[in-house]
Amino acid sequence: MKSNRFFNRDVVSIKDFQRDELEFLFEKTDKMKKLNPKEKDELGKARIMGYLFYEPSTRTRMSFEAAMASIGGSSIGISDLKSSSIEKGESLQDTVHVMDLYSDLIILRHQLDGSSKFAAEISEHPIINGGSGSEEHPTQAMLDLYTILKEKKKIDGLKIIILGDLKYGRTIYSLLYGLANYDVEIILVSPPTLQIRQESIYGLKNKMKIVELVEMDETIIKNSDILYVTRIQKERFSDPQEYEKVKGTYTIDSNMLKKFKPDISIMHPLPRMDEISRDLDNTNNAVYFKQASYGKDLRSALLALILNESPL
Amino acid sequence: MKSNRFFNRDVVSIKDFQRDELEFLFEKTDKMKKLNPKEKDELGKARIMGYLFYEPSTRTRMSFEAAMASIGGSSIGISDLKSSSIEKGESLQDTVHVMDLYSDLIILRHQLDGSSKFAAEISEHPIINGGSGSEEHPTQAMLDLYTILKEKKKIDGLKIIILGDLKYGRTIYSLLYGLANYDVEIILVSPPTLQIRQESIYGLKNKMKIVELVEMDETIIKNSDILYVTRIQKERFSDPQEYEKVKGTYTIDSNMLKKFKPDISIMHPLPRMDEISRDLDNTNNAVYFKQASYGKDLRSALLALILNESPL
Amino acid sequence: MKSNRFFNRDVVSIKDFQRDELEFLFEKTDKMKKLNPKEKDELGKARIMGYLFYEPSTRTRMSFEAAMASIGGSSIGISDLKSSSIEKGESLQDTVHVMDLYSDLIILRHQLDGSSKFAAEISEHPIINGGSGSEEHPTQAMLDLYTILKEKKKIDGLKIIILGDLKYGRTIYSLLYGLANYDVEIILVSPPTLQIRQESIYGLKNKMKIVELVEMDETIIKNSDILYVTRIQKERFSDPQEYEKVKGTYTIDSNMLKKFKPDISIMHPLPRMDEISRDLDNTNNAVYFKQASYGKDLRSALLALILNESPL
Repeated sequence: MKSNRFFNRDVVSIKDFQRDELEFLFEKTDKMKKLNPKEKDELGKARIMGYLFYEPSTRTRMSFEAAMASIGGSSIGISDLKSSSIEKGESLQDTVHVMDLYSDLIILRHQLDGSSKFAAEISEHPIINGGSGSEEHPTQAMLDLYTILKEKKKIDGLKIIILGDLKYGRTIYSLLYGLANYDVEIILVSPPTLQIRQESIYGLKNKMKIVELVEMDETIIKNSDILYVTRIQKERFSDPQEYEKVKGTYTIDSNMLKKFKPDISIMHPLPRMDEISRDLDNTNNAVYFKQASYGKDLRSALLALILNESPL
Repeated sequence: MKSNRFFNRDVVSIKDFQRDELEFLFEKTDKMKKLNPKEKDELGKARIMGYLFYEPSTRTRMSFEAAMASIGGSSIGISDLKSSSIEKGESLQDTVHVMDLYSDLIILRHQLDGSSKFAAEISEHPIINGGSGSEEHPTQAMLDLYTILKEKKKIDGLKIIILGDLKYGRTIYSLLYGLANYDVEIILVSPPTLQIRQESIYGLKNKMKIVELVEMDETIIKNSDILYVTRIQKERFSDPQEYEKVKGTYTIDSNMLKKFKPDISIMHPLPRMDEISRDLDNTNNAVYFKQASYGKDLRSALLALILNESPL
Repeated sequence: MKSNRFFNRDVVSIKDFQRDELEFLFEKTDKMKKLNPKEKDELGKARIMGYLFYEPSTRTRMSFEAAMASIGGSSIGISDLKSSSIEKGESLQDTVHVMDLYSDLIILRHQLDGSSKFAAEISEHPIINGGSGSEEHPTQAMLDLYTILKEKKKIDGLKIIILGDLKYGRTIYSLLYGLANYDVEIILVSPPTLQIRQESIYGLKNKMKIVELVEMDETIIKNSDILYVTRIQKERFSDPQEYEKVKGTYTIDSNMLKKFKPDISIMHPLPRMDEISRDLDNTNNAVYFKQASYGKDLRSALLALILNESPL
């Protein structure tokens, strides 16, 4: 049996995890799904997950809480620390220190790059980065990779389009670093003003083929296996007309879908606005809800592996 | 043994439940009350209740959370979705879809009529309507009926006064449809501007005797078995003097109490403002707190019946 | 075996607890720490802690929630009742009454003196005062005493400095009444405008030696065993210059530390602002984080003792 390298470990950056570690996690996630509720209940019984969310995130928080509850554990925490008057003036350091005393692991979401690394140095219990700064959201990347694997039975050899706002979406950066463990081809498609930050993917370009475009062309559309869509936020544009102009280009509907490979998998980290038309929801191509479901499974497995030396 | 027709079932409207089903639920609630904590704990172990509250409701949410905790389950959710910035722009459909992936059943409170029915079509797990639109609050009606049954040992044959704001209180409509399963006489008493909406009780009038009044008369007072009081909100009146004028008429105090049958049961969905005087709280007639307690029991039973094929 | 005088008991004021009762609690806290998670899990299984926080308090709420979760129980409640629109207009009495129906014990934080005593008269289940009015925070005092005992192996005979804002900090008053059960010497040090309220400690002065100062002198510094620091809030001063003037005097840093006994224990109820310099955190003298940890243990024991006749 392989040893559990997740036991008692921080999850600060997707960059800290090697391919064999990710695959170990994916195997354990498969095992987790086969357990019945009462078997799962033993894995987190009487254990406490503390969460500290300096930025609100209903989606990520719910997913972790559901994961923890499904293995029989409890959650305590604060979901909008930034506006919590009581915490005004208390340092991140002290807040993490105290939560460390109250819980068996901590989920931290914070606006600053490096916040999770900093917290991991303070905390005796493991820190899981629930999204930090402009480019880290490691568990989102893990669940994205797991989703691709479940849908395509492999990750190597795939052509993956990532579409939308690539400048501000932190999930994209973690996903790219996760994908860099595999032999994939990446096509980044975004409006000129929302292109990926070059300095953040420096070092990735010699690990995998990355193409950057402002529009999809037919060859790319015809040959891709995954279409990963992200939200384009109106607020990012100084000129509303600029937004209206690009909006259509980055919207996927059933007409658009016909141009892709029949088995294209459409992913989205959610919440979705208009960028994927609702009439795709019932197609086999729509993977975005499955992705949320895989997320709960993967996070359950991750929590179980961190909390127990040989859980699964 | 009767089969459990609540297993895996949505609770969208009180209109969907027949008398024998309600009575099955009441019997199971009686059984639930006799279990000790550790027996109850087995009924919801490792199961997750998700709640989505688009309107705040401390009372209903607490009652459901307590019910779920008492059967050993966990709750996750969002208690003020309307003001949750992260959810701005996400459709009800997507929010329900994702919560469906995270939980074993969903409690939904929403300002729109039909929201629960809509959610039930999307969700694979059961939806429980925790209050929707202007007239549906099925679990409140169930616990109201159960309260009447516990206090009077029967429902058939009773004369029931419903007093206060009958126009805007959604609980009243569900209660009336619930009572329509029984042979009862209803006396509705409200200020002219807050009378019941005729179109919403159309179809009820041939099922039971309904009298509408703007003031209680002596015969009615002397002969009634139940006095169901609701809150009259100042905000409903354009003219504050109008409010002050009617306020007194719809307030029950110990002087007023003397005019009723000695065993009149006074109910109220809570929270209560001034419409029932505090000096009635320690009388045997005051049933409103018992009602809240019965509510927790009934909701525990309901959750157990929905989550398990033969729980009780 | 001594009988458990905490079973089913309200915790309204530290004044209600005698020395032998406190020591019983401290012994049980020691026992609690030796249990493994699954043994603890039995003590609160399927039991519900309700919390009603009319003032926000992340720290106290988290500590109680963690304590309840660690003994296998659930928590439900409202964390900012004052701004909860749904509760506007509902009396404390009714809110407590309903929470009493939903839970096995209630933690109440409220701005009014006497609120917990009032609630205890209404509630059938035990009330624990989580901070009320200007002078009661009994569980904070209990954990402070327990911390002193753990650090110094005794309480009798110690010299204890209490420093900072002694006028507005409610924890100080409960701590003094707790300490009055022991043979200690108290030195109160505060700016003239933030001195302790004489009327609130009337009756204490003949129970123990209390010295009041506006600055620490060398003899006191050299001879003290405990330095209990509290926060001085800028908002308390009408003149900001006045604040800047006193701020330095009530700040402990490594230079200051050198003047104390080498084994001085520095305590603080947290959150800490600038009044204790961060460079003391890794010294053996810094006890403030241990104090938070002892707090969770003590509250776990207290909850277990209240909920069970012979738990430990």
